[in-house]
Amino acid sequence: MAKQEKTAITPTRDEDYSEWYQEAVRLSDMADRSPVRGCMVIKPWGYALWENIVRELDDMFKDTGVKNAYFPLFIPLSFLEKEAEHVEGFAKECAVVTHHRLEKNAEGGLVPAGELTEPLVVRPTSETIIGDSFSKWITSYRDLPLLINQWANVVRWEMRTRIFLRTSEFLWQEGHTAHATSKEAVERTRMMLDIYAKLAEECLAMPVIKGRKSASERFPGAADTLCIEAMMQDKKALQAGTSHFLGQNFAKASEIKFHSAEGAEEYAWTTSWGASTRLIGGIVMTHGDDDGVILPPRVASAHVVLLPIIKKPEDKAAVMTFTENLAKELRGQFYHHRKIRVEIDDRDSGAKGWDWIKKGIPLRVEIGPRDIAADSVFAGRRDKAHKDKTSFKRADFVQNITKILDEIQTNLFERALTFREKNTIVINENKEFYQYFTPQHQEKPEIHGGFSMSHWCGNAQCEAKIKEDLSVTIRCIPFEGESGKGKCVCCGKPADKQVVFAKAY
Amino acid sequence: MAKQEKTAITPTRDEDYSEWYQEAVRLSDMADRSPVRGCMVIKPWGYALWENIVRELDDMFKDTGVKNAYFPLFIPLSFLEKEAEHVEGFAKECAVVTHHRLEKNAEGGLVPAGELTEPLVVRPTSETIIGDSFSKWITSYRDLPLLINQWANVVRWEMRTRIFLRTSEFLWQEGHTAHATSKEAVERTRMMLDIYAKLAEECLAMPVIKGRKSASERFPGAADTLCIEAMMQDKKALQAGTSHFLGQNFAKASEIKFHSAEGAEEYAWTTSWGASTRLIGGIVMTHGDDDGVILPPRVASAHVVLLPIIKKPEDKAAVMTFTENLAKELRGQFYHHRKIRVEIDDRDSGAKGWDWIKKGIPLRVEIGPRDIAADSVFAGRRDKAHKDKTSFKRADFVQNITKILDEIQTNLFERALTFREKNTIVINENKEFYQYFTPQHQEKPEIHGGFSMSHWCGNAQCEAKIKEDLSVTIRCIPFEGESGKGKCVCCGKPADKQVVFAKAY
Repeated sequence: MAKQEKTAITPTRDEDYSEWYQEAVRLSDMADRSPVRGCMVIKPWGYALWENIVRELDDMFKDTGVKNAYFPLFIPLSFLEKEAEHVEGFAKECAVVTHHRLEKNAEGGLVPAGELTEPLVVRPTSETIIGDSFSKWITSYRDLPLLINQWANVVRWEMRTRIFLRTSEFLWQEGHTAHATSKEAVERTRMMLDIYAKLAEECLAMPVIKGRKSASERFPGAADTLCIEAMMQDKKALQAGTSHFLGQNFAKASEIKFHSAEGAEEYAWTTSWGASTRLIGGIVMTHGDDDGVILPPRVASAHVVLLPIIKKPEDKAAVMTFTENLAKELRGQFYHHRKIRVEIDDRDSGAKGWDWIKKGIPLRVEIGPRDIAADSVFAGRRDKAHKDKTSFKRADFVQNITKILDEIQTNLFERALTFREKNTIVINENKEFYQYFTPQHQEKPEIHGGFSMSHWCGNAQCEAKIKEDLSVTIRCIPFEGESGKGKCVCCGKPADKQVVFAKAY
Repeated sequence: MAKQEKTAITPTRDEDYSEWYQEAVRLSDMADRSPVRGCMVIKPWGYALWENIVRELDDMFKDTGVKNAYFPLFIPLSFLEKEAEHVEGFAKECAVVTHHRLEKNAEGGLVPAGELTEPLVVRPTSETIIGDSFSKWITSYRDLPLLINQWANVVRWEMRTRIFLRTSEFLWQEGHTAHATSKEAVERTRMMLDIYAKLAEECLAMPVIKGRKSASERFPGAADTLCIEAMMQDKKALQAGTSHFLGQNFAKASEIKFHSAEGAEEYAWTTSWGASTRLIGGIVMTHGDDDGVILPPRVASAHVVLLPIIKKPEDKAAVMTFTENLAKELRGQFYHHRKIRVEIDDRDSGAKGWDWIKKGIPLRVEIGPRDIAADSVFAGRRDKAHKDKTSFKRADFVQNITKILDEIQTNLFERALTFREKNTIVINENKEFYQYFTPQHQEKPEIHGGFSMSHWCGNAQCEAKIKEDLSVTIRCIPFEGESGKGKCVCCGKPADKQVVFAKAY
């Protein structure tokens, strides 16, 4: 897009990425800030997107034998304390319920009353409360594996919040499984990560790198944390899903024991894994352009909006009839086993096309008297320039819509992948590494500040120094890609692992 | 069932209905108590039932133009205070968040820290926090009607809890709509009640009486509360869904205003309506028998369980192949637009059939070598005696399964309706009314203590006296049925309304 042309979002991504993000979300009508500190309101257009993500994940979970359940919102303080690292990790961001009613004080104002004997923490995650149930449900190896998932809200009292990416309350799923052997739990941890990667790449059109966290970036209490990492358009990394092998740590904390086939009493091996409404922020930052959000068709809140163009009152009946018939025909079709989702915007407004561009709907279809006369429609794709529209014979459009949606889906993925590849380089030298991540040193800004594939010796001190100096962290130790021997990009000592370094959300 | 025969649930319904309920729920494996006071754990068998209820309701809501959204879990105290009756109604049962982190005290124990400047209430219902969003989203009559629903958890700190029926935390949906006219809001209130009644009668096989609450039983802050009331097997009433016309009360409290087509600024007219996991308790108490839960097929967690019977190891391969092929065939079929849900229980246990009886699955199918030899299956219906099983040719069973499920659904509804009709009588005399609801006066116990259709003069004092004397309340002023002039069953004064009196959950 030429610089002179006006964009729907001000500022543009180049001008101020962070502000662009807030504006893109706001103008997409997906979510609002709320009067409650750090909490958001997810509006219908954002919630529909979440519902589609939920449906895709839920089907994949169930295909692997996982069943849904629901556990209490509140966790007694004593439960949280059972796993030392775990409570340490969450103590600073817990909403604490201390009273169970309200009473009028002398001035007639309401104040908390009925103090609880033990404070309750609003769940930041549910390992400890679900562990309590597991300890009751599991007695024999025959009860294993136990494969449970919960769709829920959680609260982490973040000091600096950003809509969808980091909010005090968010929606997520948390899976929790228990197994008889370490091997089986490790396999399950990887299986669920692969499901997140499949969701990200196939449904969200968001390329991800699968890998393992370094020890210092692990989930509090986990033996191993696997993750998927995506690159946003400001070249920062977004952690888009995590899967934890918990070893026997939480089983010991919650007394999850079973009798093996040989009769011995053993602790179970557990896992947990989660993905959240943060993914919506990831979609915005991966695909959005200076005209706003672009939704990948597989999970888009709606696939296509029909925009009847009525300039003379006498055309109205014919245009609306054509529009409604077309909607009905499209809704009768399936795209990847889901019904095609169609919106009709019959508002009397010249600017309505722009509203849908900002909302990121994959297809906009204009229908005016001339189109009807030619039995055709005039369609614009959100992944193309807003003026780039094509006339289709109505029957061709109906017949080809799923193909067009797939083209958009593929195009979004390819664009994001190309962007990531363009902004990922191998760096072996310390000086080059520091320059890459230091804005004032950037000689070639177009290839600076993305992902650096660099060797790391495995020492937490090197990791901490880089984080301190540059705010750059090890996003993951990737499962795939080149490895081979090398030198640590921090200390220069021999290192046999190439890892992904980046700034991150 | 003859008294001598052993039942799966002890005590039986006749012996101790309340204990029977707790045991039926426990042995169905639908839910557990939790270590958090008054909160339950919904286990997979119970959660699957809830998911099916959610799906039915959600589809019906969306068909009327309602869209889902999500609002904060926390409500600032000052918001709750905006509507005087509303806060009065909920102040005694609020979980209050007062701190946002945990700190170690001198003894090393964790204590709440970071006191909030304004306490936050965990939502008991969301009129006030959603009203805040509505006040921002609505400016013109063009923004109306606004039709929003939220699926969420809510917390009401109940002193006496009972699993599914009254728990401190429960899952529900709460719909919130705003309209330009009183008439439209009143119509919406009724429309949503009709959806609840349709869910109850068609999906849960639970006959309900639709009506209006008396003023004293209204939702706190509502101008009118409509409800559906069902009769449980102990002849008590269960309120199974409510729909509130809120007038302009909450619009005034939250400043939800719009400019009309004529340019005047007006307050909107709002409604709210909810149904919850309490419905699961209602299903148990409507249909359950002394062998446990009976799930209505339309929402059952699963429709059919296949029980391979393997007595000799050499039969195993053939029996399992037959079973898995049958499962595949059944899963390929639809029952009321949903895929047939099939479980296979291949545990090596003679008692496994009983587990499924207690879980209430509509159909149990035994498959042994003799059945396979005859290409047949041996099926038992949960609405019939457990020994009453029928042999079907395999192909006939596959072809007829949806018909059989519909027969069970209809049978459950008819049984419940017959029970309610048998236990509903018209009472016009005060003495007879008191005897009907007083156990020691029961001369004909089989027709005592159900629903009494009696005239009421409309005076809240009469209503209060009956509640005080008998713990009997006006369940609703029904929309349908006989009305005509009569005498108030309490004071004897002229009354033109016949209402439903009953004890209730």
